[in-house]
Amino acid sequence: MPGVHVNASNIKAKILMKRKIAILGAGMMGSALAFPAAENGHDVRIIGTCLDDEIIDGYIKTHKHEKFCRPFPDNVSYHYFRDWKKAIEGVDFIIGGVSSFGVDWFLEEILKKLDPSIPVLSVTKGLRGLPDGTLISYPGYWESELAKVGIHREICAIGGPCTSYELVSMDPSEVGFCGRDQKALKMMKEAMQRPYYHISLTDDVIGLESAVALKNAYAMAVTLAVGLNIRWHGEDEPQHYNSQAGTFTQAVRETHALMQMQGGTFESEAIGLGDLYVTIFSGRTRRCGVLMGKGLNYDEVTEALAGITLESLVITRVMGIAVRKKAELGLLDLKNFPLLMHIVEILDKGMADADLPWEAFTFENFR
Amino acid sequence: MPGVHVNASNIKAKILMKRKIAILGAGMMGSALAFPAAENGHDVRIIGTCLDDEIIDGYIKTHKHEKFCRPFPDNVSYHYFRDWKKAIEGVDFIIGGVSSFGVDWFLEEILKKLDPSIPVLSVTKGLRGLPDGTLISYPGYWESELAKVGIHREICAIGGPCTSYELVSMDPSEVGFCGRDQKALKMMKEAMQRPYYHISLTDDVIGLESAVALKNAYAMAVTLAVGLNIRWHGEDEPQHYNSQAGTFTQAVRETHALMQMQGGTFESEAIGLGDLYVTIFSGRTRRCGVLMGKGLNYDEVTEALAGITLESLVITRVMGIAVRKKAELGLLDLKNFPLLMHIVEILDKGMADADLPWEAFTFENFR
Repeated sequence: MPGVHVNASNIKAKILMKRKIAILGAGMMGSALAFPAAENGHDVRIIGTCLDDEIIDGYIKTHKHEKFCRPFPDNVSYHYFRDWKKAIEGVDFIIGGVSSFGVDWFLEEILKKLDPSIPVLSVTKGLRGLPDGTLISYPGYWESELAKVGIHREICAIGGPCTSYELVSMDPSEVGFCGRDQKALKMMKEAMQRPYYHISLTDDVIGLESAVALKNAYAMAVTLAVGLNIRWHGEDEPQHYNSQAGTFTQAVRETHALMQMQGGTFESEAIGLGDLYVTIFSGRTRRCGVLMGKGLNYDEVTEALAGITLESLVITRVMGIAVRKKAELGLLDLKNFPLLMHIVEILDKGMADADLPWEAFTFENFR
Repeated sequence: MPGVHVNASNIKAKILMKRKIAILGAGMMGSALAFPAAENGHDVRIIGTCLDDEIIDGYIKTHKHEKFCRPFPDNVSYHYFRDWKKAIEGVDFIIGGVSSFGVDWFLEEILKKLDPSIPVLSVTKGLRGLPDGTLISYPGYWESELAKVGIHREICAIGGPCTSYELVSMDPSEVGFCGRDQKALKMMKEAMQRPYYHISLTDDVIGLESAVALKNAYAMAVTLAVGLNIRWHGEDEPQHYNSQAGTFTQAVRETHALMQMQGGTFESEAIGLGDLYVTIFSGRTRRCGVLMGKGLNYDEVTEALAGITLESLVITRVMGIAVRKKAELGLLDLKNFPLLMHIVEILDKGMADADLPWEAFTFENFR
C-alpha cells in the first residue's frame, strides 16, 4: 500500500505548489520518476525520444511499463517525440531521461532548441574523456557545448543508488540532486521528494557524477568474483563473500583515489559507494561481470547480452583511457589502480583469464 | 583442488623458514588460521581455552571442525588448555584466537604469564570504551594493562573481511596485519600468506581495529533494511536493494566520521568497508539485523539467537556509549550519526519499531 510503510515524520507537511514536469525519454529510469512526481499531484508528461514511439504506444494503451509493479498514476500523460515542443509548454522543469548513448542527441535535438530559462534535471549516468585524460560530467559537457553556440544554462543532475523498478515499488531510496543553481535544485527537490524518495542536495556536480559513473567498472569487478566462484566450485555452491569483499575493499580504495583526482566531496563518494552496492546486486552489470568471471570472453559476453547496450562497458573503457593518459602525463601511478586496469585489460584483450590480481591489492603502510 | 584456481604469480617462490606457531583458542577463526599456517609447512599447535576441552576432544578424534569443508592438515596438533605452557614451547609466535568475551581472561591467564619476547597476533575483534568516550583497541588495552605490571610488549592484530569457513575453502581473502613491530609483522606475513590468503601490513592499529569493529553496528543497520523489506512485502518478495544501498551510503559516511575521530588511515577504513560488505552477507549479525527489521523486539531476538553470544550487539553498545559521551563533551554532533544512534536506541529501548530514519540521512552541501 502506497506510503504506509515509511516513516514520513520528517517530511514537512505543507501544501505543495502544483508543478508541470516533463520527462524527456521513456526509458525505465525516466518513466519511474513519473511516480514520485505524479504522486505529489503535479502534471507529469512523459515524452518519448525519437526511438521511443513504440513505448509511448504501449503507455497510451496500458498505462503501464511491463517491468513496473503498478500502472502510472492518472495525472501522467504520454507524448510522442514529434510533439515534444507542445508537450513541454508551461513546464517548471524538464527531467532528461536519455541513455548515455543519447547524450549528443539530447544536446542537439533538445538542449540547443530549449528555452534556457527552463531548468533541466538529468538522470543520464556517465563521464566523457578529454584528450588530456580529464573526465568531465555530462552536465559539464552539455554546458560547455551550449556555451560555444552562445547558450548559457546550468544543468542539474541526479545521482545515487536507485533502481527504477524498486523506486516504483516504493522501496526507500536515497539519492542526490546536484547543480550550481540552488534555487532550481530546491524547487525540484520539493516537487519530487516522497516518503520513500529522499533527496540530498549538493553543488558537487563533478564529484557526484564521477562517483556514480566509476561504480560501473567496480561493480563489474566485484561481480567478477561471483563468477569466479561459480567457475571454481560450480553453480550449486553457495556464494563466497571473502573474495567479493576483498575486491570491494580495493574498489573503495581506487574510488577514493579517483575521487580525489576529480576533486569530489566525500559525501558524493559515499553516494557512489552505495550505488556500487546496489549495482553489484542488480541487472545487467552484474550479469556481465558474472559471465566474465565464469570465463566467457568478450565476444561471448556480448552475445549472451544480445541486444542489450551495456553502459557499464562504455564507461569502463572511458575511465581506462583517461587513467592511462593521466599516467602517461605523470599525474598518477597505474600501480594504484590494479583493479580498474585489470577490468580494462579484460575488455581490451577479450578476457582470456578473468582471475583477479589478488596480491596486487595488498599494501605495506608504515608511517 | 587446493590452490589450483588462484593466481600465485605474485607470491614469491622461495624456501620458507619452518616456524612453530601456536593458536590459542579453538573457535572457528583461530582454528581456520591453522590451514594457511600448516599448508606453509609450519608446526601448528591449536591450544584450546579453558572452555574448549570438548572442541579439542573432537579435533583429536576427527581432525576436523564440523563447519569446515575439510580436515586439518597433518602438521596441526591439538592441545588442552591445561597443557598450554608445554604446547607453546619454542614457538615463533602465538595467534590469539579468543572471543571478545575472553579479552580479560587472555590478559590474565596468558599475556601476563607469557615470555614478552614471543610475538602475539590477535584476531579478537572489538573496542573498549574509556570513561571519557575514548575507544581503544584490544591490543592497546592489553599493552596498557601489561605496562601497569611492568610487562612491556607490543601486540599485533588481524583485521579484514575474512569468514573462517571461506578461508578454509580457500576463497581468495584480503586481510590486514597491524602492529608497531615491523619485524614481527613481516615474519608473520611470510609465515601465513598463501595463494588464497593475501596480507597487507600497517602500523595503524587503532584505525584497523576500529574499522573492523565499527562495521558490526553498521552491518546490523543494513540488514535491518533486509528485514524491513520482508516485513513490508513478505518472505517471498525478492530483496530490494535501494533501501540497503541508502543505508550503506549512510554507514560509509558515519564510518568515515568515526575513523577521523579515531585518527585511522583511509586504507584501514577501506578494509573496514570490505568487512562491512562481508558481514552483511554472513552469519549471526545478518540474522540479528533481519529479525530486528522484521519487527522482533530485543527479547525476541535474543531468544531466537538462543545460546549464541552476539559480539555485534556488545560492540554496538560500546560505540553508542562512547559516541554519546563524546557528544556530551562537545566533541561531536549526534546529528551526524543518525544510523548508529537509531541502532543503539533500538537495542536500548527494546525495538518497538525498527524502521529507519531515512530522511535524516539526507544533507544539503553547498560550498
